[in-house]
Amino acid sequence: MTQLTLYIGNKNYSSWSFRPWIALTAAGIPFEEVLIPFDFPAGNPRFFEVSPTGRVPALHHGPLRVWESLAIIEYVAELFPERHLWPENAASRAIARSISMEMLSGFRALRGACPMNMRREKRKIVLPEGVTDDVARISTIWRECCEMSGGPFLFGRFSAADAMFAPVVNRFDVYDLPVDRDALTYMDAMKSHPAWIRWREAALAETWIVPEDEA
Amino acid sequence: MTQLTLYIGNKNYSSWSFRPWIALTAAGIPFEEVLIPFDFPAGNPRFFEVSPTGRVPALHHGPLRVWESLAIIEYVAELFPERHLWPENAASRAIARSISMEMLSGFRALRGACPMNMRREKRKIVLPEGVTDDVARISTIWRECCEMSGGPFLFGRFSAADAMFAPVVNRFDVYDLPVDRDALTYMDAMKSHPAWIRWREAALAETWIVPEDEA
Ligand SMILES: N[C@@H](CCC(=O)N[C@@H](CS)C(=O)NCC(=O)O)C(=O)O
Ligand SMILES: N[C@@H](CCC(=O)N[C@@H](CS)C(=O)NCC(=O)O)C(=O)O
Repeated sequence: MTQLTLYIGNKNYSSWSFRPWIALTAAGIPFEEVLIPFDFPAGNPRFFEVSPTGRVPALHHGPLRVWESLAIIEYVAELFPERHLWPENAASRAIARSISMEMLSGFRALRGACPMNMRREKRKIVLPEGVTDDVARISTIWRECCEMSGGPFLFGRFSAADAMFAPVVNRFDVYDLPVDRDALTYMDAMKSHPAWIRWREAALAETWIVPEDEA
Repeated sequence: MTQLTLYIGNKNYSSWSFRPWIALTAAGIPFEEVLIPFDFPAGNPRFFEVSPTGRVPALHHGPLRVWESLAIIEYVAELFPERHLWPENAASRAIARSISMEMLSGFRALRGACPMNMRREKRKIVLPEGVTDDVARISTIWRECCEMSGGPFLFGRFSAADAMFAPVVNRFDVYDLPVDRDALTYMDAMKSHPAWIRWREAALAETWIVPEDEA
């Protein structure tokens, strides 16, 4: 099969890149990875060479270019149906997509105040308005899904929905956000996943510093 | 089959409700529609009865609740594969999802400054920063997709991607945004679609006024 090439940003900071990367890696799907570092403050012009939005992630497959983290996941899920990136049960799959799109379109207070930062040491910050509501809603999503499925991941086995929430697990962790025991259990499962560990090790080996993302 | 019930907001204003409504209606999929009017400034508590996010649209199917406009469309596309809500060609489908998710997650300057308003008379407003960039990117998407497919819709026949951009067609129209001839041709096709006409007639018959959405 023609090779899949995934273009990503810095592993320490690029939350949207992390999502398809961990979805594909956890599912054992082979792909070539090309890292284009953020080049602040100018912005890296190479982003526009790989994606029409000038943002990463982007996936190239022969002449086809797919952009938007979740569209990449959907495309690969269709290419490899036997890898079951989405839950197999139709109702679970519908809920998995609902929460994935809630993530894609929302939680802007949390995303703005608490940038993903794999190497940050755990330390609280003053939380701006809205962040606590986002944390509460995300905790509810995790608790209800893990309860329904039995865990350890949102729908039992690791799925695309876990991939969409992976950067939030890092945020909850390194900003020491107020979470309950159920959330901590889920976060531990995520942080122990081999694909998580691989991404994190590569992130820790990076030396780029993006001041805007050091909250 | 168990009935599908789609909960929506005011047809004049609820851009997110319009998206699954027009996708299902254009595909000839039967569903019951329940309109819960916005009840400003308090917010309508019934939104929380139908959706865990307290936002419309939401789809109920027996005991299952699906929320987020695009997750509803994906669920119904899977229930009725023979209706081809997405383009049939895998590469076109990937691009259709990329632009649909770009819509779901982005274009916030345009969405904030120019709320959907079906009954508004065409009138320019002073455009805040960022709106012109959004208009330019959306025009490019429309032009490239229609060129590639031959039109009149983004991927030839009306698809889920057109549904995701439907409220933007109204915005381009009633705020008289600066668009090229290709965009106007696409907008005309959208505004002539029977499902568009049905939604618009119902919107014009509404009497609720939401001051926040009268820009
Ligand atoms: N909704 C997009 C968001 C993509 C995005 O914002 N990517 C960031 C990196 S995490 C980016 O490329 N920023 C570079 C820039 O804006 O110049 C997705 O889901 O892929
Ligand atoms: N990302 C969501 C957005 C839903 C949304 O914001 N809906 C608005 C109406 S268009 C709403 O319910 N607002 C009511 C409120 O926030 O109280 C989707 O795609 O469905």
